[in-house]
Amino acid sequence: MGTMLSPEILAVLERQAIEVPSWAYGNSGTRFKVYGTDGTPRDPFEKIADAAEVNRLTGLAPSVALHIPWDKVDDFGALRTYANDLGIELGTINSNTFQDDDYKFGALTHEDPSVRRKAIDHHLECVDVMDATGSRDLKIWLAEGSNYPGQADMRGRQDRLAESLAQIYARLSGDQRLMLEYKFFEPSFYHTDVPDWGTSYAQVAALGDRAKVCLDTGHHAPGTNIEFIVMQLQRLGKLGSFDFNSRFYADDDLIVGAADPFQLFRIMFEVIRGGGLDADTEIAFMLDQCHNVENKIQGQIRSVLNVQEMTARALLVDHDALVAAQRSGDVLAANAVFMDAFYTDVRGDLAQWRESRGLPADPEAAFRASDYQSRIEAERVGGVQAGWGA
Amino acid sequence: MGTMLSPEILAVLERQAIEVPSWAYGNSGTRFKVYGTDGTPRDPFEKIADAAEVNRLTGLAPSVALHIPWDKVDDFGALRTYANDLGIELGTINSNTFQDDDYKFGALTHEDPSVRRKAIDHHLECVDVMDATGSRDLKIWLAEGSNYPGQADMRGRQDRLAESLAQIYARLSGDQRLMLEYKFFEPSFYHTDVPDWGTSYAQVAALGDRAKVCLDTGHHAPGTNIEFIVMQLQRLGKLGSFDFNSRFYADDDLIVGAADPFQLFRIMFEVIRGGGLDADTEIAFMLDQCHNVENKIQGQIRSVLNVQEMTARALLVDHDALVAAQRSGDVLAANAVFMDAFYTDVRGDLAQWRESRGLPADPEAAFRASDYQSRIEAERVGGVQAGWGA
Amino acid sequence: MGTMLSPEILAVLERQAIEVPSWAYGNSGTRFKVYGTDGTPRDPFEKIADAAEVNRLTGLAPSVALHIPWDKVDDFGALRTYANDLGIELGTINSNTFQDDDYKFGALTHEDPSVRRKAIDHHLECVDVMDATGSRDLKIWLAEGSNYPGQADMRGRQDRLAESLAQIYARLSGDQRLMLEYKFFEPSFYHTDVPDWGTSYAQVAALGDRAKVCLDTGHHAPGTNIEFIVMQLQRLGKLGSFDFNSRFYADDDLIVGAADPFQLFRIMFEVIRGGGLDADTEIAFMLDQCHNVENKIQGQIRSVLNVQEMTARALLVDHDALVAAQRSGDVLAANAVFMDAFYTDVRGDLAQWRESRGLPADPEAAFRASDYQSRIEAERVGGVQAGWGA
Amino acid sequence: MGTMLSPEILAVLERQAIEVPSWAYGNSGTRFKVYGTDGTPRDPFEKIADAAEVNRLTGLAPSVALHIPWDKVDDFGALRTYANDLGIELGTINSNTFQDDDYKFGALTHEDPSVRRKAIDHHLECVDVMDATGSRDLKIWLAEGSNYPGQADMRGRQDRLAESLAQIYARLSGDQRLMLEYKFFEPSFYHTDVPDWGTSYAQVAALGDRAKVCLDTGHHAPGTNIEFIVMQLQRLGKLGSFDFNSRFYADDDLIVGAADPFQLFRIMFEVIRGGGLDADTEIAFMLDQCHNVENKIQGQIRSVLNVQEMTARALLVDHDALVAAQRSGDVLAANAVFMDAFYTDVRGDLAQWRESRGLPADPEAAFRASDYQSRIEAERVGGVQAGWGA
Repeated sequence: MGTMLSPEILAVLERQAIEVPSWAYGNSGTRFKVYGTDGTPRDPFEKIADAAEVNRLTGLAPSVALHIPWDKVDDFGALRTYANDLGIELGTINSNTFQDDDYKFGALTHEDPSVRRKAIDHHLECVDVMDATGSRDLKIWLAEGSNYPGQADMRGRQDRLAESLAQIYARLSGDQRLMLEYKFFEPSFYHTDVPDWGTSYAQVAALGDRAKVCLDTGHHAPGTNIEFIVMQLQRLGKLGSFDFNSRFYADDDLIVGAADPFQLFRIMFEVIRGGGLDADTEIAFMLDQCHNVENKIQGQIRSVLNVQEMTARALLVDHDALVAAQRSGDVLAANAVFMDAFYTDVRGDLAQWRESRGLPADPEAAFRASDYQSRIEAERVGGVQAGWGA
Repeated sequence: MGTMLSPEILAVLERQAIEVPSWAYGNSGTRFKVYGTDGTPRDPFEKIADAAEVNRLTGLAPSVALHIPWDKVDDFGALRTYANDLGIELGTINSNTFQDDDYKFGALTHEDPSVRRKAIDHHLECVDVMDATGSRDLKIWLAEGSNYPGQADMRGRQDRLAESLAQIYARLSGDQRLMLEYKFFEPSFYHTDVPDWGTSYAQVAALGDRAKVCLDTGHHAPGTNIEFIVMQLQRLGKLGSFDFNSRFYADDDLIVGAADPFQLFRIMFEVIRGGGLDADTEIAFMLDQCHNVENKIQGQIRSVLNVQEMTARALLVDHDALVAAQRSGDVLAANAVFMDAFYTDVRGDLAQWRESRGLPADPEAAFRASDYQSRIEAERVGGVQAGWGA
Repeated sequence: MGTMLSPEILAVLERQAIEVPSWAYGNSGTRFKVYGTDGTPRDPFEKIADAAEVNRLTGLAPSVALHIPWDKVDDFGALRTYANDLGIELGTINSNTFQDDDYKFGALTHEDPSVRRKAIDHHLECVDVMDATGSRDLKIWLAEGSNYPGQADMRGRQDRLAESLAQIYARLSGDQRLMLEYKFFEPSFYHTDVPDWGTSYAQVAALGDRAKVCLDTGHHAPGTNIEFIVMQLQRLGKLGSFDFNSRFYADDDLIVGAADPFQLFRIMFEVIRGGGLDADTEIAFMLDQCHNVENKIQGQIRSVLNVQEMTARALLVDHDALVAAQRSGDVLAANAVFMDAFYTDVRGDLAQWRESRGLPADPEAAFRASDYQSRIEAERVGGVQAGWGA
Repeated sequence: MGTMLSPEILAVLERQAIEVPSWAYGNSGTRFKVYGTDGTPRDPFEKIADAAEVNRLTGLAPSVALHIPWDKVDDFGALRTYANDLGIELGTINSNTFQDDDYKFGALTHEDPSVRRKAIDHHLECVDVMDATGSRDLKIWLAEGSNYPGQADMRGRQDRLAESLAQIYARLSGDQRLMLEYKFFEPSFYHTDVPDWGTSYAQVAALGDRAKVCLDTGHHAPGTNIEFIVMQLQRLGKLGSFDFNSRFYADDDLIVGAADPFQLFRIMFEVIRGGGLDADTEIAFMLDQCHNVENKIQGQIRSVLNVQEMTARALLVDHDALVAAQRSGDVLAANAVFMDAFYTDVRGDLAQWRESRGLPADPEAAFRASDYQSRIEAERVGGVQAGWGA
């Protein structure tokens, strides 16, 4: 057992779960080019198999998020059984109102009531799927906005958004929740209808207790202090979920922790500070990434490990010493306590702990050593590789 | 009378008022250097004289904002009379908790209750001043934050901020209001306690109806769509006031409209869209600028004229045509209606209208032609020029 | 004839030419969705027909840039004749090394000599096309870079880039030129091999006199003063061409002048200051835009008109007054001279001038009034609409 | 001796030297407030004493940079002797043309030849100082620029800058060098005369071999890949020196490595890749920071330790494994080699190594345990604390 990882820390790490997205296993790219790779899944079942492999090797990814209609199947019960047999659950249901020609100028915000109706109905269908899959969360990311000043009536759209969301929210039952994601820009280039946490917060606050904000770490303006938002949304009781990834510029969707590991550390520290890793936490932790040029399954393995590792480091922060230094106005002492945890190498201890739980010490090496990749490359021949359109 | 400016437009322009800040007439600069200039005011009375000159020439600036303690005088009644005699009112009272050694690590958010008490008391004193000056608004900009990760407990500070604000809010009476300004960064470089509109909104929403957000146009992350925030805060009933200025990089505090006139046009359009220029508007329009290298009085004259001119252009937008184009999804037609108003040169019509009201057609030229500047340069000799510290 | 547009100004406007890109007429979009529209060209000939229509209505777009292989035809001589018959020329040849699987990890910079050879050969083939089309310029935009720190050896790539470019440059003959475009980011998200003007400048300076920098107005970091770069590259004799477009966030590829008309004005002012609109200018002016949600032909018409209009305004700057104010350190006077030109509405004068030259006063209205769009929508049925892949 | 730090690595660390700036020990702040602290030096001798203490505890800071006129003394020989007696050298001489009223509108770029003459003469005087102090480098950071479009003729200023620099360069003798620093913005808010590495490079390339670029890590646009610039300037033979610090937003001047330790690691990796830590390196490594709210001496100690630590980590990168992964296009393997070095905790090994060399294992703790701070607080009473103006 690791010397640095106390039983209290291990108890938190033990229950840590990071949901993986089905679409991470399909092809992705930029507007310039999408590269295909051998072994890419061709249907939701194959995506789930890949997700299960990530969980099998890491013990960190017990559920997989679905995207409708990309992951639409005739029998979601069968899909659920398939997942369960592989040791994982079906998780968050993601709606999609950005790939239909009708949505060119909006969906939940559209001027035309018939388009709004269609978009609302799509979300109601998503809740039907949730009923079938046992999913708790409906996650809504809206690509809506405009490209040119004057093109759209931002105020009217905001009001229509509120009305549409209210209809969707009313359909939820039991402990089902609605997550509203915000994004600074893209695919719209002048205005976006839900561009910041404030807008998402105002909209979900108007809906009710089971509506929350989804924070995607890549969806902010340059220089934004993301951990501050994490703090604030927890304080307001409205942080519903994370979409983890990392970025250098825009919404790069790189592996979480790859661009700025210290930022991920600070985010996890603030999550812990706000109780977000407590046993009764209501925050869902998910990945939302694109593995454009790297191996997708291994990319997912590294991602969940990055979150685990930075969580472990954040748990190492000596809170008493930190608080004492903060109270005394000793800037350098407080910062030193903080940095000491970040700089501590927990990888060896985590590897030992993994082994003690019957997991590979090095899940990436285990994946590389296994025949999983070569097997799917051999098997998944023919058909159409899954991507953002399928 | 101008051919383009309809009676309806002129009715709006007639009541337009932009409050000027007393500190714009004092010296300002960067951390590297503050340049002094001949004629700079040496006390609040001289600042008010300069502000009155701006109003005399433009008819646009009927009130001046004060900054406590910079503008502290023994007898605010006398100051008020002095202002009234010059044809202007005393306006918003701005508190200052960023220049006392006690506030090095916070004021309303400080760990130490005695420092918080001092900062709260300062605000209560500001309300006393409001009672004396007849000011409606207390504007709070907080320089609080931290420079290094770990230095401060962001969550605790946010909670203490809420408590401190509640005490200040409780002191207001009648139609007095509290404005909470947000700022992306500076003077703190890691975290700022009120960094974005969402935080300001959440804090003032918890206080009550007479607490609102102050939007400073220079206080956002690069690329932020400010007019969207204008729309959203109006929609939520929480846009209390504007601090106008412009910027290319950070909080440059340049003349409003100087860096991006089209942005100012879009902001004014959205203000109008939300009813913010209606006769019963509750939004206060103010300047908050630094004239580091240019003539300060003339800089203020140009600033209020820029706001007036962009307001006039925004009022020219053909709403029916715009709505029709928006509804039909005709992107270029909608944008064209919008741009047509922006590109229309209203300066000649505004000059004519000014003359018809007994104002100089060209207030800047009138100022240059007058002996005001040479007179104050001759008179204001000796003493200490006012700056951010006085 | 317009009262404001002097014969000297009209002489400059008379010779103004803005090259349009063939790909602007095809479909484009974001990584999330590409919308198709009726009437979209299905081959290079149809793109050229659309480009010719833009020129017919504006008199501003006498040439069209081609993109290889998107615009590859069996007989470029026939394509050239087709264009000439419609009154336009074939212009810049754009290479493409970002859509072949071999280029996943680089082209001119690739570790593997055989991939570099392939990429160099592609450029040599582009020069062959130039020989056939009579084009002067080869424009090279490289999508090369990496997504993760450590993924690539940036230094080795820079050296290989120099070697590859030298081979391509050596193939040029007569007055043919090589333009190296830079871009801040995308599609690579950690490092880009030609990310800034400095890199492009250093590379082309090493090649020789006929190698220049291409400045795409959308390819800079937030806050970059683009007109400064325009000034500097002209001063260094290395500004070869412009790719015009506009952006609010990243490389949005919106209509030039749409996001910040004042910036376009400042850029054109600096072009004029540096002699870039003189009769013997070597600077090529081009559009590089995506009309994702608006009519493509009309979008191109508006784009060239925006450039013309901001050029006219920039030509109105009273240089003597400006220089005098600058020399005397009168900040506001200098700025006022500058802004006066920007705020002057030249649209009426330009319309009159157009009519005097046998062009429609309002080219956009003329396009809307014509049956061109309805005709191509009726005719261009079947086949595959052109996009970034064809 | 540490197990991870090979003799080859230790040989590099052994010769590592980071110059500290005299002004870091004086008071600094923002435009809003400069906080004074007990013990702040009151003259150049006291600054040098503090710098010597940093070197005594770390063995990393054998020289101190001076700033003229802040550090002007009657007898630089005496100052040099004083420094030498304390075990350090006088290093880079920094000129200052941003605090004299004459320079309000420029210094080396000013329209007025007499102001340019004065600014050039100031630099010649700085070279005189270099002759007296034995300094190799003259570092020039220019605050010059403009706040409003039209205010200045950017092109003329660039030409005048070239002429002024040529006169200064001509005065150098022996192995003296000229370093030209660039900065994105501040204190100018519209244009800056040396805003980017490309401009600095073009200017120093025109001067000659002994003119180089100074790269300040805080002087870039948001999102800039700084290590790419490090690579490029080394490749071009023009990287003269570093000004180390860190930032979240603008030029925050925080402790190097504090905001993004991974970025510092990447920069040091690229320095090593380019030979910048070889025994014959010509690159000077300096700090340029402001300790606004933290203890200044301890802040400097931590800063040089941060550079040392990230250098050690960067030296740990397994180059053979990295190159092999890069060549094979194995993105995740290459990134893993890179990250493994970054994540390795070298602090214990460095502490041991320090002790083996007669240095404190933990220099910060040693400083805190010493009576140095309490002693200077007691001694340095009366007089005027040094700041940016003295």
